[in-house]
Amino acid sequence: MNTIFLTRRERFNAAHRMFRSEWSDEKNLEVFGKCSNPLWHGHNYVLFITVKGNINPETGCLVNLTLLSQIIRSEIIDKMDHKNINLEVNFMEGKIVTSENLAIAIWKELEPHINQLGIKLHCVKIEETENNFVEYFGN
Amino acid sequence: MNTIFLTRRERFNAAHRMFRSEWSDEKNLEVFGKCSNPLWHGHNYVLFITVKGNINPETGCLVNLTLLSQIIRSEIIDKMDHKNINLEVNFMEGKIVTSENLAIAIWKELEPHINQLGIKLHCVKIEETENNFVEYFGN
Amino acid sequence: MNTIFLTRRERFNAAHRMFRSEWSDEKNLEVFGKCSNPLWHGHNYVLFITVKGNINPETGCLVNLTLLSQIIRSEIIDKMDHKNINLEVNFMEGKIVTSENLAIAIWKELEPHINQLGIKLHCVKIEETENNFVEYFGN
Amino acid sequence: MNTIFLTRRERFNAAHRMFRSEWSDEKNLEVFGKCSNPLWHGHNYVLFITVKGNINPETGCLVNLTLLSQIIRSEIIDKMDHKNINLEVNFMEGKIVTSENLAIAIWKELEPHINQLGIKLHCVKIEETENNFVEYFGN
Amino acid sequence: MNTIFLTRRERFNAAHRMFRSEWSDEKNLEVFGKCSNPLWHGHNYVLFITVKGNINPETGCLVNLTLLSQIIRSEIIDKMDHKNINLEVNFMEGKIVTSENLAIAIWKELEPHINQLGIKLHCVKIEETENNFVEYFGN
Amino acid sequence: MNTIFLTRRERFNAAHRMFRSEWSDEKNLEVFGKCSNPLWHGHNYVLFITVKGNINPETGCLVNLTLLSQIIRSEIIDKMDHKNINLEVNFMEGKIVTSENLAIAIWKELEPHINQLGIKLHCVKIEETENNFVEYFGN
Repeated sequence: MNTIFLTRRERFNAAHRMFRSEWSDEKNLEVFGKCSNPLWHGHNYVLFITVKGNINPETGCLVNLTLLSQIIRSEIIDKMDHKNINLEVNFMEGKIVTSENLAIAIWKELEPHINQLGIKLHCVKIEETENNFVEYFGN
Repeated sequence: MNTIFLTRRERFNAAHRMFRSEWSDEKNLEVFGKCSNPLWHGHNYVLFITVKGNINPETGCLVNLTLLSQIIRSEIIDKMDHKNINLEVNFMEGKIVTSENLAIAIWKELEPHINQLGIKLHCVKIEETENNFVEYFGN
Repeated sequence: MNTIFLTRRERFNAAHRMFRSEWSDEKNLEVFGKCSNPLWHGHNYVLFITVKGNINPETGCLVNLTLLSQIIRSEIIDKMDHKNINLEVNFMEGKIVTSENLAIAIWKELEPHINQLGIKLHCVKIEETENNFVEYFGN
Repeated sequence: MNTIFLTRRERFNAAHRMFRSEWSDEKNLEVFGKCSNPLWHGHNYVLFITVKGNINPETGCLVNLTLLSQIIRSEIIDKMDHKNINLEVNFMEGKIVTSENLAIAIWKELEPHINQLGIKLHCVKIEETENNFVEYFGN
Repeated sequence: MNTIFLTRRERFNAAHRMFRSEWSDEKNLEVFGKCSNPLWHGHNYVLFITVKGNINPETGCLVNLTLLSQIIRSEIIDKMDHKNINLEVNFMEGKIVTSENLAIAIWKELEPHINQLGIKLHCVKIEETENNFVEYFGN
Repeated sequence: MNTIFLTRRERFNAAHRMFRSEWSDEKNLEVFGKCSNPLWHGHNYVLFITVKGNINPETGCLVNLTLLSQIIRSEIIDKMDHKNINLEVNFMEGKIVTSENLAIAIWKELEPHINQLGIKLHCVKIEETENNFVEYFGN
């Protein structure tokens, strides 16, 4: 009872390309358009991590926010910021680098660490541009 | 499983007036205040369309974003941008032009087109000003 | 049916300190970090109040927005704006001044007034900084 | 010396149409495009008024901000908010309702009142959309 | 006189790397830090183009905004959006891809086209992230 | 020639009170209004530091941005964040804590450090709320 939802915003700037390795560049450009430029493009990604649970009566907080931020940074931001997502982010290996796949992959990376804090991961939201964002709620 | 939510933001600038045609201007001003100015006022409306479904394993995408944007533009934005909502938007005929009624009407316009993409419409959100917005989830 | 969600944004600027009175300043600083500075700090808090219900068929509105704004202002903003939340806000007395506790307290203050409008309170969201916000949905 | 610049943001929502009365609707649409829709459209205009001068040593302020806001509201916002700029704003009579002309007209309305405060008007900035704004510095 | 300043915002998403070709990767990383990642990173760049001049008395406008936007898009955005700035943008060839150099290069590309409109280019502003931007005024 | 302006945004959350110590609380409240609440209030201050100079031809940068950010943080942010500006910020001692005085004091703190980088400080801008900001250009 008294479930509280808390969201932390973090940012990372990265290069990526949407493409399927078994398709030709032509086929990739046909399907993914300019997002499949073989020489890459990039974004200022904005990540919103929402966790939920009960307030700790001793502190009045759901979770130590500094600790939550450190987990997001060490598990996600440090691995993605100023990186090429296709080539340098191990948890995206073998996946098409879309925001949809990214949200699910980030969920899988973060969930066990969030659970160890005694709270639950509720939502991973990724803003790719001011006009597009995706959300994943874990199922 | 692995339901992904994707949101596309689009914008339109339009004139409107909140009023009931069977009421006098006085009665309308009493109920709706300055929003019922008979000579109109207007807004920079911001529209957020959220769709949901499973990721297409071939593309790693929920939906072709260009296609989704085209549908929102052809069905909604092109009909509303730089228009008088009361006088020129056919799907608002006979309705009081509030953001609430607008959200429901936009849902009805978009839903069949979204369904044809093999995904579901999840939410129509309309921001009228930076301080006010409405959301409709279809029921 | 046809449930509409409407959100009103309001703002207040206030001072606060996170601390437990039965703990020493040292213990408070250890647990709460710089947020426990005994000489206070402050924020531009942004409050989003979401209500829900059916559209009034006579007006096409969920609720009179001016009335909703007046309630939020008289019950919350006028009591918190340019105040010290720990020392001057009666509904926070005896509570640790975290955004989590604030969201629940604001819910309790607003809910009976929202109910009197014939609609339901759906969410209290508080943004403390551009990187942190909490949401409470009433249970 | 020690010139300080202070900016106050205010907002108004209004309808307008860009057109020249001596031209036909066809000619107006040719020149002004969709902005000349004869049935109007509208915007959430954002107004930034920048004033400048020396700090009052007794108060540490350039100007009483409440007073400045009241002047902007009584001279501009109250006359424009929820109005039709072409038909209801006396200081725009006989002028083409562009943001450029609006900025100059607002300057002329505000300048004598700002001067009476012992400070100078520095800039009138009008944002018509998130992508377009104009600035006028008085000459 | 009655000089008006008008600003148009446009956006592009691109990959880049800060580096000097005659330096080793180690030296580049030492000087440019993570911004020199050899596998690229990227940004959602926001471009603000400010022009100035006198209002055209026939139209009440400084310039045809559609035309201005088309020039910015054809000369800059179409060449940079979803591109690798180091490898694919001809007017950045042989230059270190910093926002500073980008602002000057964009100025040189745009200025002759702006002059042809009978107005003057006043400022090229580039936002690389929400925390960093550069401005160039032409000398 | 080729003067470039570069702006870095930083943020701090602090408590303050506008008052003159030789005046009574009543007199202070009369002059400063609710901003003079004796029990403090606070803000999420946003600081924009603009520097100017020529591009370093070796790096294509005006200045090492990491170094600039470190200076702003060590000289200003670390001294102000989560602090009471009236009681804990040494460079505001004896001054009325207005944004105007703050901008001038921050200029004086930063200027010698910026000069040591071989560039010039151009502007200190402080946003106190989304509706109010001040700018100081050094004279």
